[in-house]
Amino acid sequence: MEVKARAPGKIILTGEHAVVHGSTAVATSIAVYTNVSLRFTTPSDDEDLLKLQLKDTALEFSWPVSKVREAFPAQLSSTPTSCSVENAKAIAALVDHLSIPEAKIGLASGVSAFLWLYSSIQGFKPATVVVTSELPLGAGLGSSASFCVALAAAFLACTDSVSLDVNHQGWLSFGEKDLELVNKWAFEGEKIIHGKPSGIDNTVSAYGNIISFKSGNLTYMKSNMPLKMLITNTKVGRNTKALVAGVSERMLRHPDIMAFVFSAVDSISKELTAILKSPTPDELTITEKEEKIEELMEMNQGLLQSMGVSHATIETVLRTTLKYKLASKLTGAGGGGCVLTLLPTLLSGTVVDKVVSELESCGFQCFIATIGGAGVEINFGPSY
Amino acid sequence: MEVKARAPGKIILTGEHAVVHGSTAVATSIAVYTNVSLRFTTPSDDEDLLKLQLKDTALEFSWPVSKVREAFPAQLSSTPTSCSVENAKAIAALVDHLSIPEAKIGLASGVSAFLWLYSSIQGFKPATVVVTSELPLGAGLGSSASFCVALAAAFLACTDSVSLDVNHQGWLSFGEKDLELVNKWAFEGEKIIHGKPSGIDNTVSAYGNIISFKSGNLTYMKSNMPLKMLITNTKVGRNTKALVAGVSERMLRHPDIMAFVFSAVDSISKELTAILKSPTPDELTITEKEEKIEELMEMNQGLLQSMGVSHATIETVLRTTLKYKLASKLTGAGGGGCVLTLLPTLLSGTVVDKVVSELESCGFQCFIATIGGAGVEINFGPSY
Repeated sequence: MEVKARAPGKIILTGEHAVVHGSTAVATSIAVYTNVSLRFTTPSDDEDLLKLQLKDTALEFSWPVSKVREAFPAQLSSTPTSCSVENAKAIAALVDHLSIPEAKIGLASGVSAFLWLYSSIQGFKPATVVVTSELPLGAGLGSSASFCVALAAAFLACTDSVSLDVNHQGWLSFGEKDLELVNKWAFEGEKIIHGKPSGIDNTVSAYGNIISFKSGNLTYMKSNMPLKMLITNTKVGRNTKALVAGVSERMLRHPDIMAFVFSAVDSISKELTAILKSPTPDELTITEKEEKIEELMEMNQGLLQSMGVSHATIETVLRTTLKYKLASKLTGAGGGGCVLTLLPTLLSGTVVDKVVSELESCGFQCFIATIGGAGVEINFGPSY
Repeated sequence: MEVKARAPGKIILTGEHAVVHGSTAVATSIAVYTNVSLRFTTPSDDEDLLKLQLKDTALEFSWPVSKVREAFPAQLSSTPTSCSVENAKAIAALVDHLSIPEAKIGLASGVSAFLWLYSSIQGFKPATVVVTSELPLGAGLGSSASFCVALAAAFLACTDSVSLDVNHQGWLSFGEKDLELVNKWAFEGEKIIHGKPSGIDNTVSAYGNIISFKSGNLTYMKSNMPLKMLITNTKVGRNTKALVAGVSERMLRHPDIMAFVFSAVDSISKELTAILKSPTPDELTITEKEEKIEELMEMNQGLLQSMGVSHATIETVLRTTLKYKLASKLTGAGGGGCVLTLLPTLLSGTVVDKVVSELESCGFQCFIATIGGAGVEINFGPSY
């Protein structure tokens, strides 16, 4: 018996950094997934083990379920709960025993989140969980959130806490209440990985579509136009905290200027959501809307540059795409990371191929993804 | 007898484009000059000719003074006056006779301005006027304004309209009233060349120092700190009118966003003038002030990018100077033209040499200039 879950990554369309200072930001899901497969095993199968396989990093961890059970001093709550200091210590002990290579030590917190979610939701049954992800790690595409959402979804799908049609063929969405539960658990996983996550990434991954957020308030919306984005991963690691701090320091040095910059970004996000929500067809054609969005992206990029969060590799992507008259902006923290390029509906595939091959020849990694699609989904295999 | 005049070029430090929409802009003179030498000749010398030599373009024009006199139907005013349609026709007839090569036909309006200024200020005496300029033409460095200012200064220096110490050795400044006269005449010359000039360029060239301007009001100020700029001419010709129109159209499409962008630029100009005017030494060291100015330049550049007036060559200069941790911004209309890079006081000459040679290897032309120095000056040769 096997259940699969897939959860999309996210991009920030507009408003990164400015959102920290009260502006509106807009995030959307991208059809690039973290996939989780959960298979319960019988003790005879495999020595009573809980196994986690991280396919992309070719790492495999396992714990006897009895050890996992022993580790937790108190009964675990089956409703979304933050991992207590005591439980965190127990998990740390389970993770410290693993031989995670030094270069991949960043995965330890993801393994901890897995142990917390699995034990809390599924208890201590032997199982094999396989994770594969199309999302680059630490590139600002919400890989950790989609990992947590996919895990929580797969684990919850096999409980009575949610109601799903196990006979459904193909990918299946959660109902609204169940989705809320998945999202809450995923957020608890994110907290183990990130300390103080904003909750945006897991929400976008769980719900899909488009979310605008301002001062902690989220507004869901459905896009009325398809948008295709080229996402270029510069592969330059960022120090998000330092970048956020840099913008705040600049804000303290130049409060008047930066307040106007943030207000301009706020207006960009508002204009963008108005375009995305407007009915199609309306007085503007898709192409006219795309041109407006391209202009908004260009303006947002200029404003991000004025915040000081661009990077030489980002500029390289901008220049390359500009040669083909395509508009781009950084997405997320900046200082490297990923760059978005709108691929207009009428753009020929030949041009897309050229841009991609030119970007890849710079050593960048490219994804083409439709944005604003479905959130997390479940697939019960035929043997379920 | 010979009199020489030199008039500096100008750069816009901050606020280009935004100034059209009501923001403050800051312009300053650069110690890069147009030089004019005026030598009266006697009829026996040279057949009663008025000669104009444009050394940089290896062009020489001459007119018998009698022809020039005949051309003007009415008595010319010796106080600054706009060239009437009738007089413009007369000048056009004098210029049309010249064999200006097609590629340099843009110089015709400069020759017209010369004829108007010379005839109005000096009447119809035979003379040889030699012009050499260190300023590139049409690159946004105020070459035409400094041409007009230097001509007006040289021509006025030999009249009773101004009072100068002809025995002074070396370069000599005009008194305030005389400077006003020079500037007014230069503006009339600029009108012949540009149609509707703003008057900023000739004012900066005449007065030197720093001028902030907003909604047509000029404020003069003296900088309290020396600043050295690397000016890189991308040699890409711009269509200033189209660039200005492009920003206005973007403003109509996105009024809220652009209003904030322009307000941010206004605050940048205000902060810059406060730094430049602040006494030295004060609580900030020169280096601290330079760092603030670099940040203001970077922010202004980002805002210009959000107006859509940058260009691939400008980005190349930005990237090159950024490698050396130097801050740059476009100056003037954008879309090519010139880029400013602040050269901090403590920057080693070796680094400057490296940056310059790297930029020149891209085909760009580099100047290093102190900014905010003297305006137009006169030099009476020993033979005066």
